[in-house]
Amino acid sequence: MPLVRIDVLEGRTPEQIAALGDGVHRAMVETIDVPSLDRFQIITPHASGWLIADPEYLGISRSKDVIFIQITLNAGRTLEKKKALYAAIARNLAADVGVRPEDVLVNLVEVAKEDWSFGNGIAQYAT
Amino acid sequence: MPLVRIDVLEGRTPEQIAALGDGVHRAMVETIDVPSLDRFQIITPHASGWLIADPEYLGISRSKDVIFIQITLNAGRTLEKKKALYAAIARNLAADVGVRPEDVLVNLVEVAKEDWSFGNGIAQYAT
Amino acid sequence: MPLVRIDVLEGRTPEQIAALGDGVHRAMVETIDVPSLDRFQIITPHASGWLIADPEYLGISRSKDVIFIQITLNAGRTLEKKKALYAAIARNLAADVGVRPEDVLVNLVEVAKEDWSFGNGIAQYAT
Repeated sequence: MPLVRIDVLEGRTPEQIAALGDGVHRAMVETIDVPSLDRFQIITPHASGWLIADPEYLGISRSKDVIFIQITLNAGRTLEKKKALYAAIARNLAADVGVRPEDVLVNLVEVAKEDWSFGNGIAQYAT
Repeated sequence: MPLVRIDVLEGRTPEQIAALGDGVHRAMVETIDVPSLDRFQIITPHASGWLIADPEYLGISRSKDVIFIQITLNAGRTLEKKKALYAAIARNLAADVGVRPEDVLVNLVEVAKEDWSFGNGIAQYAT
Repeated sequence: MPLVRIDVLEGRTPEQIAALGDGVHRAMVETIDVPSLDRFQIITPHASGWLIADPEYLGISRSKDVIFIQITLNAGRTLEKKKALYAAIARNLAADVGVRPEDVLVNLVEVAKEDWSFGNGIAQYAT
């Protein structure tokens, strides 16, 4: 896996939540060579006031509907692939769920292949 | 500390939650030299549909009761120790809480000793 | 951004939550050169029993009101700056919210500049 944490303001419908997860995952498949079955996501709703994003940092106009996406993944993607990933996530969420691109925040945390167990107590990716 | 985030489907009893935390912690004490008092865990329940794990990636048959365990810890454990940790977590959760080993997902995030403060505003592990 | 996850016991007032976030952010501005507008925080309340911190590890007497603060940020801060950050967080939370310094746990996770998108699908910090 990558492990994807998505944090959103409460109030979205189950359909919107499913579409958010789909859009983020499809972007990963499209741009950084994640297998289509390799989907592991934790989506968490938060009350207003508990999810805080500055409304203008770097000149980007963010709303209350900001979406945080933190992706833990294996190290080694190139800068070009990371840029393509950010663009694809924003594009998919705009097209599928109507999310403003300004409201899409992404952070990557890189780890090693041996840092995963996908089940059964085994380090499936370790060489 | 390691800092351990455990994400589960809602509906488990307080007894099960306590046993889950115990089983993960005991595995860390048994296999990667974590002191028995060095326990810091954040356990979060999620509604159905908000915790997404592919039901067959890598040929592992996962259920809706998948458990995500993300452990931030000091860098430097060997691959052998990491493998022992994954096995011990799956074994303990099966024995103590009846969790299917296929449903136990683990991810490690390594940091430096200076990246921790255990209280009082001091970096206790920094040399 | 740094991305700051703050996990607390449920029951705090909105005013306390706002003050907690303010105190942590101000500490980052004061000590590790975070721009004042660069504020991105996810604060999550947890029921009793779901937030577990050993009450005496390293000789620090922790209560049930422990606060976990996990900060993902760009790599490169010196040990001196990190120490100043830990001290400032504990100091601010004591002064502003009455948090016991023993109850303030901090963990840093360092990433690269290219690991962020602050909106619009662009890697604003990548060179």
